[in-house]
Amino acid sequence: MDVVGKSIRRPDAAEKVTGQATYTGDLEVAGMAHAKVLPSPYPHARIVRIDASRARALSGVFGVVTRHELTDIEPYYGSDVKDRPIVAIDRARYEGEPVAAVAAVDLATAEAALELIDVDYDVLPIVAAIDDALNPMSISLHESNLCHEAHYEWGDAEQGFAEADHVFEDTFTFPMVYHYAMEPHTVIAHYDETGIRVWTAAQHPFLIRNELARLYGLPLSKVQVTIPYVGGGFGSKSYIQLEPLAVALSREARRPVRLAFSVEQSARTVRRHSARLTLKTGVRKDGSFVARDCKIYMDAGAYTDNSKRVTARCADRIPGPYKWPHITVTSQGLFTNTGPAGSFRALGGPQAAWASESQIDIIAAGLNMDPLELRLKNVAAPGEMIRHDKNPLDADVATGLQKAAEFVGWEWPRPKEQPTQDGKRRGVGLACSVLNSGASPTSTALVRLHADGSATAMVSTVEIGQGSRGVMAQIAAEELGIDLDKVAVVASDTSTVPYDRSTGSSRSTTLVGLAVQLGAKEVKQQLLDLAAKHFEAPVDKLSTKEGSVVFGEEGVTYAALIRQMFGGPAGELMGRGYVTPQAQGRLSGLPVFWEMSVFAAEVEVDERVGTIRVLRLVSVADVGKAINPKQVEGQDEGAAMQGIGHTLFEEQVYEDGRLLNPNLIDYRVPTFEELPEDFETILIENEDGPGPFGAKGAGEGGIVAVAAAIGNAVYQATGVRIKDLPLTPERVWRTLQRDGKG
Amino acid sequence: MDVVGKSIRRPDAAEKVTGQATYTGDLEVAGMAHAKVLPSPYPHARIVRIDASRARALSGVFGVVTRHELTDIEPYYGSDVKDRPIVAIDRARYEGEPVAAVAAVDLATAEAALELIDVDYDVLPIVAAIDDALNPMSISLHESNLCHEAHYEWGDAEQGFAEADHVFEDTFTFPMVYHYAMEPHTVIAHYDETGIRVWTAAQHPFLIRNELARLYGLPLSKVQVTIPYVGGGFGSKSYIQLEPLAVALSREARRPVRLAFSVEQSARTVRRHSARLTLKTGVRKDGSFVARDCKIYMDAGAYTDNSKRVTARCADRIPGPYKWPHITVTSQGLFTNTGPAGSFRALGGPQAAWASESQIDIIAAGLNMDPLELRLKNVAAPGEMIRHDKNPLDADVATGLQKAAEFVGWEWPRPKEQPTQDGKRRGVGLACSVLNSGASPTSTALVRLHADGSATAMVSTVEIGQGSRGVMAQIAAEELGIDLDKVAVVASDTSTVPYDRSTGSSRSTTLVGLAVQLGAKEVKQQLLDLAAKHFEAPVDKLSTKEGSVVFGEEGVTYAALIRQMFGGPAGELMGRGYVTPQAQGRLSGLPVFWEMSVFAAEVEVDERVGTIRVLRLVSVADVGKAINPKQVEGQDEGAAMQGIGHTLFEEQVYEDGRLLNPNLIDYRVPTFEELPEDFETILIENEDGPGPFGAKGAGEGGIVAVAAAIGNAVYQATGVRIKDLPLTPERVWRTLQRDGKG
Repeated sequence: MDVVGKSIRRPDAAEKVTGQATYTGDLEVAGMAHAKVLPSPYPHARIVRIDASRARALSGVFGVVTRHELTDIEPYYGSDVKDRPIVAIDRARYEGEPVAAVAAVDLATAEAALELIDVDYDVLPIVAAIDDALNPMSISLHESNLCHEAHYEWGDAEQGFAEADHVFEDTFTFPMVYHYAMEPHTVIAHYDETGIRVWTAAQHPFLIRNELARLYGLPLSKVQVTIPYVGGGFGSKSYIQLEPLAVALSREARRPVRLAFSVEQSARTVRRHSARLTLKTGVRKDGSFVARDCKIYMDAGAYTDNSKRVTARCADRIPGPYKWPHITVTSQGLFTNTGPAGSFRALGGPQAAWASESQIDIIAAGLNMDPLELRLKNVAAPGEMIRHDKNPLDADVATGLQKAAEFVGWEWPRPKEQPTQDGKRRGVGLACSVLNSGASPTSTALVRLHADGSATAMVSTVEIGQGSRGVMAQIAAEELGIDLDKVAVVASDTSTVPYDRSTGSSRSTTLVGLAVQLGAKEVKQQLLDLAAKHFEAPVDKLSTKEGSVVFGEEGVTYAALIRQMFGGPAGELMGRGYVTPQAQGRLSGLPVFWEMSVFAAEVEVDERVGTIRVLRLVSVADVGKAINPKQVEGQDEGAAMQGIGHTLFEEQVYEDGRLLNPNLIDYRVPTFEELPEDFETILIENEDGPGPFGAKGAGEGGIVAVAAAIGNAVYQATGVRIKDLPLTPERVWRTLQRDGKG
Repeated sequence: MDVVGKSIRRPDAAEKVTGQATYTGDLEVAGMAHAKVLPSPYPHARIVRIDASRARALSGVFGVVTRHELTDIEPYYGSDVKDRPIVAIDRARYEGEPVAAVAAVDLATAEAALELIDVDYDVLPIVAAIDDALNPMSISLHESNLCHEAHYEWGDAEQGFAEADHVFEDTFTFPMVYHYAMEPHTVIAHYDETGIRVWTAAQHPFLIRNELARLYGLPLSKVQVTIPYVGGGFGSKSYIQLEPLAVALSREARRPVRLAFSVEQSARTVRRHSARLTLKTGVRKDGSFVARDCKIYMDAGAYTDNSKRVTARCADRIPGPYKWPHITVTSQGLFTNTGPAGSFRALGGPQAAWASESQIDIIAAGLNMDPLELRLKNVAAPGEMIRHDKNPLDADVATGLQKAAEFVGWEWPRPKEQPTQDGKRRGVGLACSVLNSGASPTSTALVRLHADGSATAMVSTVEIGQGSRGVMAQIAAEELGIDLDKVAVVASDTSTVPYDRSTGSSRSTTLVGLAVQLGAKEVKQQLLDLAAKHFEAPVDKLSTKEGSVVFGEEGVTYAALIRQMFGGPAGELMGRGYVTPQAQGRLSGLPVFWEMSVFAAEVEVDERVGTIRVLRLVSVADVGKAINPKQVEGQDEGAAMQGIGHTLFEEQVYEDGRLLNPNLIDYRVPTFEELPEDFETILIENEDGPGPFGAKGAGEGGIVAVAAAIGNAVYQATGVRIKDLPLTPERVWRTLQRDGKG
């Protein structure tokens, strides 16, 4: 291949490193007003009265939205359950929830107007966390505090436990974490009689289009959602967040309105589900897994957002890549008076893997077995079923585990290591998981070949930092057989590029890339038909090469064929790519691929103070075919760093329903200081994925098994098992003290 | 038909009348600099030295373009001949020609920087007008002062004159006029390492793309030309004008640059060709035309721009709709030191019709014949050839003439009318012409059908005031069989919508509309294929109706079919429309249609002061099928009003190479005061055009024959024949005095 498989420089590199790239916040829309939101000061309160008349009368105020301005539209939205009000209607359910919003000539005026909005609150008791939500005496946030329950089982777990030689039961917790994308939520909206236009920092333009069309009663064709470059998402910009409010403001203000959240506001808007997971696992003496019973509780926050999917995915992912004869899984998402939880890279995966893979090592210790051997004994091979209702596994986890183990010099029994003079101990750990990819096989693309033989690929993938534009260009260039620098990519605008479901679920290269490849193939077919006339030769005697159609010794350039068709240097050819569940054999059934997460880590624990240093970290990713290897590695390593965050540092802390640390001083994310000294991604490329050139998804796997690999390494180093994240120095030190190991 | 043929309200109506619509000048591009141009103070001067170092050193200046900054690119551009420098290189050839340009933090800084550019000029003699250009002793602006010569002949004109009973020879002049679109030329350009992005008020986005790609050595895919609403063009925004300079400034300034011309600057940038036309016409006693010899001189100004086409089209159009046994036509475009002449509504048509149709009435008077009868005797019928190298006539001029005559109560002999008490005389006049349409049959479109059954038509037609968006929506809605309000139109951006040659030549409804119709048909075909599976029925038993595919008594909505295909409320169908000379039988050969211009006018001349009032004006337009009748009439009436401008008022006046009247005080355009009291467009709709539903082009015809109809009416009123436009009160009065009629 000429272009695919090469680590080309991404086309947005120069503009991004020079600060020229345009994000939503950089846009200036003619006549744009500026908006501010009045946040609820209480985590739970009934709104008795709200009167914005003084605010509305302030000079420079163009429009105010309160619940009174929502009576003629659908006021509730959501990607799934429509339970989130555009602004609070009867109650505010989390501290910071928008209660009203103002659009004004500038931000200072909008701020001043907020002070003039009179609200009478009736403060309500709060549901602070999972235990409150499970308490039947607690107040209900919605009809009940159960947001969603996912359940499945096969075999007979009770019978399995009876057959088991040993049963292990452990409870793990996973913290509430925030995505901390560099760019907070920002929207510019314009509502007028021709429809709605929205510019937003979002991952799912077409789903936003659907929801805005529903709220405002418009056909899909009259809602345009445009996504400039996005400064990171990781799920925080999935589905729909501020867009309905920005549109409501524009409708009131009768002009475009810019609504830009601060980090503090964004941190309350969406986050990852904290979780408590109790696993009861039965095994035979030889280590074979017999049965598992899993109870998962996830904190969904105040509104449903994507909690149904997350709750279900965590349940899907708790078995790991293993063959369980008997399993029972129940996963509940629960409402609390905290910021809503939604999508976050690998929905439910890190929570599930933290619990499951920590317990695998607990079991290995209990059986005095090599944790690697225990995994290899139970792991499913490619082609085997790990869920009776899903496609067979298509990832080679065993090979991944072996490669990861090799990277950290895995030995068993582990040679006893003495603490260094300064009281530091080292240990290695392994962990693995598989994700049933959430990728929906519903993508389309259009490939346009211009009169000079250059091409434009039209795709809806959002450029969110992942480097999608270069990858789509590589796929189009390879399939068309033209130079990469002749290919432009136009992306992420619902009115100008064709449908794609979403940017997320590790799906873009595989599914949108496939749509681009199919579009390029349709262009080629038209070229071959034109060339058949040109050469007076049958199509099956023709081939394409380097921008020409070739017949024997002769060639005719694509440009010449287009010019012949249009009678001059004019016109273009268009090729459509439709990816549907039906049309592509390999995409029928779900998941369209399994994404593997395999990690090995070596850590050094300073037992005197509880700090953990990750010395070595390796991820093995089965990507089918890396279109741009360096970018895949970058994605995977970025995910691993994000995983180090929730493993060692990150946690949103709520006290009495108030978020204490919505900023980078109090909420610690990993920095380059925490970069493992030896940090690598190993790519497995069997060209066996359903995507173009055998690609399959990557980008989520890299975050999933990090915590357990590090936790298992900490155990190997110290002999202490910590079941709660993050592994902060304080928590490590206290646990060492408690267990008498400090 | 449900939608086509209805005078729907145009979708941009509300935003335009409320001032909300966004034009290029309204855009704010992040980081945008502001530019000013240093104009040549001389109409003709050699540039001896230019030094911008002091300007470049001024604080706030981001970049300066002089000839020295153009050495690494192609510095000359043009739609046809590449003779126009981005800024003057060796010489400046008209007063106001850009000699340098500055991009700065604001306009005041840019203005200040212009003062700091040192230029040494060597002033040259000028070629003031046509006679100078024809004088071999004059200095040459380019290789010679002949810009272009078009010539054709058939039969043997000399023999024809020998056979004629009477030979008439007359010379007519047509003034230099300016389009006076409400919006002057405005461009924002951004050049960076990813390519070029341009937002511009222009009619031909894809031709600008071609030319910028050539100048800057880029593939077509890397040049994006976006056209917001355009505030009128009429040809002034055809091809390429300020865009290369704006891009050059951005390249120097390393950021987006806005370059907005004042009306004064725009008036020097492009205009219509003034012309002198000498016609020698031989007729028989019975009025049959035998021979014609035409000599046309057109003032092309300083650069070629579109003068080759205009010179040729004036030649093409001078025969009118008549069958000439013998004809010889020579048309020369000549360089002068005035602002370049380019495209203007109906290239060369008004000049040709003014001369030809005035002379027809002179002949009628000479033969003492009814001018209507003389025309009807000689006019070609539909299907007859009027040029041996062109498609046969497809417009019914004779019917048009009769309808027009009827409207003004044509009688012959004309009843002698006494002047009114206040010295006013009335007269009626007729004129007709046909335009070989310049429309190139090279258009493409894409029609997208969304998951709710709404649709988007992607077309490159520029919304220039003509109402194209509504018309394209009507065509798509009609062909798809869906409600009009479900159709959106996305237009005029070379990176997001497919190729179209240009917005002009009365071509958009016919050719882009046809592409939309073809695209809709391809969508329908996909729906029928899906429905065939759905119903398990053959496609030929299915039909479409009101957003559903119907099989017998059963129906399935488009939305349901798309959801079935994509497995949920997702996806979309795309249909491509390719209009090429080959693909559509009716478009082979040129012109793709003949556009007819038929006018009758009644005027009242105040002989004491020379003023003319147009009492009645009727235009008969053969439009094949009016997609939106009210809009066609609006277009036609707008054209007629513009024709009244050059007939009665408008003329750019140059003195010693200096334009004296580049503003609305000194250059008079028609106002609503001049609206004829009785003003009508009669549409002929035989559904026989090559466009969708039988449409053919309109929009240019309405300007062509106005002047001659009014001139002929003035003759009928006063007995005085004026051969020079405009028919200002002074000119009318002087002529009346000279002829002893005043």
